[in-house]
Amino acid sequence: MREVPSRIVELITVGTVESSLKDMASAPKQGDEGAPDAWLVFEARFGDALEGIAEGDELLVLTWLDRANREVLRTRPRSDPARPVQGVFTTRSPDRPNPIGLHRVRVLERDGLRLRVSDLEALHGTPIVDVKVPLGGIAER
Amino acid sequence: MREVPSRIVELITVGTVESSLKDMASAPKQGDEGAPDAWLVFEARFGDALEGIAEGDELLVLTWLDRANREVLRTRPRSDPARPVQGVFTTRSPDRPNPIGLHRVRVLERDGLRLRVSDLEALHGTPIVDVKVPLGGIAER
Repeated sequence: MREVPSRIVELITVGTVESSLKDMASAPKQGDEGAPDAWLVFEARFGDALEGIAEGDELLVLTWLDRANREVLRTRPRSDPARPVQGVFTTRSPDRPNPIGLHRVRVLERDGLRLRVSDLEALHGTPIVDVKVPLGGIAER
Repeated sequence: MREVPSRIVELITVGTVESSLKDMASAPKQGDEGAPDAWLVFEARFGDALEGIAEGDELLVLTWLDRANREVLRTRPRSDPARPVQGVFTTRSPDRPNPIGLHRVRVLERDGLRLRVSDLEALHGTPIVDVKVPLGGIAER
């Protein structure tokens, strides 16, 4: 059977994570499992998109998990050998066709293009691709 | 000041939305504001990633909002003229540098590579780029 090639779109980096987490072995699997505070550092040309973000805000940060394996379609959740293999779309594994990370964080401090946030499990150098508010968040006050 | 160009990564389409919503004028802004049921139709080569998904599951669907304007950095939330302009990162506007849609849905029916889901505000033909479980969802049972 002939497979039509998947359409490809271009994602750009709007910023980068600065974190004490340097490798996957030291990173917790989720932000609420002991992840450190980290800095989100945005590129100057996207600064206007941050207008209105302040200390205390809850944000959803979308990252590009650039150390993930994009060929993986099935995995054991949480790398637990006792658990059955499942499709990656039923998990939060970073390994998946498009390794987009989704992180819920709180803003602890803002310094211009830099936001210090709580509990981010992304590694140092991870590209940031989008930021949103949770539904019920600051855009809906 | 010289701007270093943003790094570009390639996102592939893993499936497509089939919906009765054909244009932005008829689409609600959020899924819980009267959005219809829709079908998520996955490409055969990503079928293994769906293993374990069944009726009743809650999923986070990530889409590529291909009709959005990627040049917009500031907007009025919910297009409400009474509200002040804010950075797009403080909103859920589809217009943003990387227009990734984030939708929480429930699986109503599964038919192989096709999932019928509730309350999806994405338009017909919107590319699907990822599927995850909410934290506390089926991967963590």
